[in-house]
Amino acid sequence: MRTVDLILRKRGGEELGVEEMQFLVNGYTSGEIPDYQMSAFLMATYFSGMTDREMSALTEAMIASGQTVSLSDIPGLKVDKHSTGGVGDKTSLICAPIAAAAGVVVPMISGRGLGHTGGTLDKLESIPGFRTDLTVEAFRAQLAEHGLCFIGQSDEVAPADKRLYALRDVTGTVESIPLIASSIMSKKMAEGIDALVLDVKVGHGAFMKKQVDARRLAQAMVGIGRRLDKRVQALITDMNQPLGYAVGNALEVMEVSQTLQKAGPADLTRLSLELAARMIYLGKQAASLEEARKVAEDRLMDGSAYKKFKAVVQAQGGNPQALDKFELLPNATGMREILSPRAGYVSAIMAEDIGRASSMMGAGRGRKEDAIDPAVGAILEVKVGEKVDAGSVLCRLYYTGEENLDEAADLVEDAFRISGARPEVRELILEVVS
Amino acid sequence: MRTVDLILRKRGGEELGVEEMQFLVNGYTSGEIPDYQMSAFLMATYFSGMTDREMSALTEAMIASGQTVSLSDIPGLKVDKHSTGGVGDKTSLICAPIAAAAGVVVPMISGRGLGHTGGTLDKLESIPGFRTDLTVEAFRAQLAEHGLCFIGQSDEVAPADKRLYALRDVTGTVESIPLIASSIMSKKMAEGIDALVLDVKVGHGAFMKKQVDARRLAQAMVGIGRRLDKRVQALITDMNQPLGYAVGNALEVMEVSQTLQKAGPADLTRLSLELAARMIYLGKQAASLEEARKVAEDRLMDGSAYKKFKAVVQAQGGNPQALDKFELLPNATGMREILSPRAGYVSAIMAEDIGRASSMMGAGRGRKEDAIDPAVGAILEVKVGEKVDAGSVLCRLYYTGEENLDEAADLVEDAFRISGARPEVRELILEVVS
Repeated sequence: MRTVDLILRKRGGEELGVEEMQFLVNGYTSGEIPDYQMSAFLMATYFSGMTDREMSALTEAMIASGQTVSLSDIPGLKVDKHSTGGVGDKTSLICAPIAAAAGVVVPMISGRGLGHTGGTLDKLESIPGFRTDLTVEAFRAQLAEHGLCFIGQSDEVAPADKRLYALRDVTGTVESIPLIASSIMSKKMAEGIDALVLDVKVGHGAFMKKQVDARRLAQAMVGIGRRLDKRVQALITDMNQPLGYAVGNALEVMEVSQTLQKAGPADLTRLSLELAARMIYLGKQAASLEEARKVAEDRLMDGSAYKKFKAVVQAQGGNPQALDKFELLPNATGMREILSPRAGYVSAIMAEDIGRASSMMGAGRGRKEDAIDPAVGAILEVKVGEKVDAGSVLCRLYYTGEENLDEAADLVEDAFRISGARPEVRELILEVVS
Repeated sequence: MRTVDLILRKRGGEELGVEEMQFLVNGYTSGEIPDYQMSAFLMATYFSGMTDREMSALTEAMIASGQTVSLSDIPGLKVDKHSTGGVGDKTSLICAPIAAAAGVVVPMISGRGLGHTGGTLDKLESIPGFRTDLTVEAFRAQLAEHGLCFIGQSDEVAPADKRLYALRDVTGTVESIPLIASSIMSKKMAEGIDALVLDVKVGHGAFMKKQVDARRLAQAMVGIGRRLDKRVQALITDMNQPLGYAVGNALEVMEVSQTLQKAGPADLTRLSLELAARMIYLGKQAASLEEARKVAEDRLMDGSAYKKFKAVVQAQGGNPQALDKFELLPNATGMREILSPRAGYVSAIMAEDIGRASSMMGAGRGRKEDAIDPAVGAILEVKVGEKVDAGSVLCRLYYTGEENLDEAADLVEDAFRISGARPEVRELILEVVS
């Protein structure tokens, strides 16, 4: 088998077999296939796409490149949830405790924020003492005891994906649905889970700008799951404005706490409940999706989800009191109001710009190595469809230093579109792919 | 300027500017842009193509990566001829002396054979004593004296193209018209010529299998020439059977000698005359193409072209007597006849297979480093359209060793298609692009 022949066949739109995909991934991981051949293959894939079989084969080869976690000795079905990344998206911190409170075992393996999107681990680490760098033994023990644990991804999982991702980043081959789908699924499927709920974001603040692309990505991932014998469902949800009101790590934890205490924003509550319901259904803690939705709502309403979250925070070294006393969380030292330049309706809130502004103030990182400031961020005061007066507060920025503040403020001001006509209401949950 | 952004723009079908092309070529030549980014760019180019402006910019950047030859101190217009490569294609050895005999200065800078196609330098070197490794000074002196010199390409010309070609070869990005066109033109335009006649081969034995692709390549090269202020014309010619009867180095030199003595095959004579006429016309040794055709025929008929060729052979150290006494050329030690399995008409002679068989017997090389056997090859006894009986000789193979002989014989036998109906006559010169 020659690598150049496989590149040529992919270039010509032919389907590669399982062994050929293994040859490519194993050869690349071992260093026998050089970067320059792999990047040509990746660009050919960008243009020619992949069949479902190829995506599954690529995913399996990437899984096989590293260690896999077995959770089979922990009773119950293990269900994870993954989002393709949005702005203000703190649903993992809400749906996971709801599902765990309903009896689902949730090994929540998460990432850190990069660019304009936040990361679950960064948000959790704004809680004083919270640790996500658990040993595998501590992770298992906590899953067995609490049914929920938040942890970062081990470097030993799917190392081929890590190398490929770094190569894609510098060769203009990131935006390829088969490559995105197999990258996400290889990491998730190596975790020893039985089922997975995906939240594929679409819109200005998301990686996928068009619904048709989000649908293709969702279908690709659900298809890979099916071939790997895992139950996978995907929601396609709107990211044309931030989710909830809070953007920024500690600010988002505060909103999580409010939501788990039934006082959260309507959109965040609704999406978190739907994600939790899907987790409960796939985790077989309800006989139907309808029943699962009822269970999810009950676990939120009866306070058991909030109790579960506090127990998990405590188990992972965090101070659960900080969830009730926000002064125990990192707090910003300064606040600036962004005012509406005129009266009208909020017709759009460009989520990516809010995320970028927040990141610029220190909430996010441009490179993986950067440190973040957990206290800073933005709190929206209005959402799309609301009426505002000239001079109304649109958003409050919370900062600890004035560097980049003016630039961030300009970005946020421009992110709000005010129009004379009342905008059409946009659906939050656009589609389900299962 | 970031390389990844240029890759993304090429991927998206956008046009890159002159400075951006220079950035890519210079960065790659200097080693600042790594192979893996360049190969992604090349694959994106394969799919997205290039505009005429981009091709010219790429060509100019590749020319600028190395040395350029100036021939302006030698009086007269310099005209070269280049073929994209065929089987039995020895036209350079015929049209160049005709054009030189007509007063055109012909710096014939040629290559070696690779794969199933032969190379002008290899053919010439089958003449005892003939040397193509001249110094630049000797090259200039001979051009000034004889108006014709055959030489190999210097390593200092267009080194960026050399590196790019090696990368394309292993990354499945050879078959891209903008990349082929700029590769050929960068080498030719660095030679200090005023005009160029191109012979773009199309068909089974050629790199371009389809006429539409050959036309695009011809148009691309003529367009690059125009933007670089050189007069360029291209013929698109049929390569669905070998040109002439002889395939193999010394065998082809014999046929060249016969053709220059007015006893050559009709197709080879016709194409050589047309190429020579174009060279004479572009070299301004005739006022019209019609007149140039007449001049070319006269120079062949009056023996001055043959005389010119002999003088050049002598000037380059070769024995001109070998052109009259073929026993002075390398001769094969064995011969095998390939017989027709049945009566009928020769409907096709798969040129690539004849070329591969000849190469297999030693006439060509699989890798650049391989040595060749100048004596071996094939002489067709019939051409497409001729009637044969069962047992008629289709072809004679000339060999010096029996290794690979059976395999070559099978390949040649299968290359001849014999059918009951008389095949349609195919045009030799299919199109002119100018």
